[in-house]
Amino acid sequence: MNDEKKKALQSLKTCKGQIEGIIKMIEDERYCVDISNQIIAAQGLLKKANMLILKQHMNCCVRTAFVNNDKADEKIDEVMNIISKITGK
Amino acid sequence: MNDEKKKALQSLKTCKGQIEGIIKMIEDERYCVDISNQIIAAQGLLKKANMLILKQHMNCCVRTAFVNNDKADEKIDEVMNIISKITGK
Amino acid sequence: MNDEKKKALQSLKTCKGQIEGIIKMIEDERYCVDISNQIIAAQGLLKKANMLILKQHMNCCVRTAFVNNDKADEKIDEVMNIISKITGK
Amino acid sequence: MNDEKKKALQSLKTCKGQIEGIIKMIEDERYCVDISNQIIAAQGLLKKANMLILKQHMNCCVRTAFVNNDKADEKIDEVMNIISKITGK
Repeated sequence: MNDEKKKALQSLKTCKGQIEGIIKMIEDERYCVDISNQIIAAQGLLKKANMLILKQHMNCCVRTAFVNNDKADEKIDEVMNIISKITGK
Repeated sequence: MNDEKKKALQSLKTCKGQIEGIIKMIEDERYCVDISNQIIAAQGLLKKANMLILKQHMNCCVRTAFVNNDKADEKIDEVMNIISKITGK
Repeated sequence: MNDEKKKALQSLKTCKGQIEGIIKMIEDERYCVDISNQIIAAQGLLKKANMLILKQHMNCCVRTAFVNNDKADEKIDEVMNIISKITGK
Repeated sequence: MNDEKKKALQSLKTCKGQIEGIIKMIEDERYCVDISNQIIAAQGLLKKANMLILKQHMNCCVRTAFVNNDKADEKIDEVMNIISKITGK
């Protein structure tokens, strides 16, 4: 497993722990703004994981597609589709 | 616990399950684009949870602050701060 | 016109000027990454304008709706709908 | 000029017109929620322009960098940096 995937995995595991914490915060009726801020922090971790996955995808699959001129347009469309989803409507 | 919080809790629990699935996808060396799409789905669940928390916060704490004219400006600033963070820099 | 609206107006005018600059950059075949960064800066100005409009909407219309208990739920739904659109799907 | 750039140019010109309309809406003291929705529409046009610029950048500069193995890592970093900015902090 490459470095980016290892770091993505770490972010996802941290994020999972945070979500468990947020669930507990809601059950304990903690202040909404604090809950909201924790959700934003968890979103940041998911975003970080996604950036890492995307980066190594570009470095690996997209690069190979370009170099071999094999389905390069398809790979670009896939990546643009992901980016478009990440950035919202 | 009000309805919004119950639904937020459900979204967070589903999200946690999805993240466990994504961790397994990375460990199984699944295709990056599929992993990325799953991360985006998990982000959608966190966003949904946050919207629900924010909505009931407005309905409850912000409403009370306005009605009692008690720290209303502070509440507005808190909410705007959250919205600003959610929407990115 | 209140302060927030004045500032929003200023952001929008600056943004308009930036977009004129970006149009010229594309016509001059400038480097894509520089163009992209300028578009992001323009997006930042629109976001700032929207936050200002939203803030004074909360301070004014939403506050009045809560205090008079007049269509408060409708106002909350409107604001949540805006926030949901801003933050993407 | 390639097709993507032509379409991006068109989006930017439409966006500029929309912003002029929004400025007028604020000056005419129109309802904040309508103003906010128009700003969101303008943001959508900027996003569309940016996606088009980014797509043709990938198809052109990034592809060339990969094929010639010339500063490919630098190009990836540039693109990831843009994506990271677009998706917010």
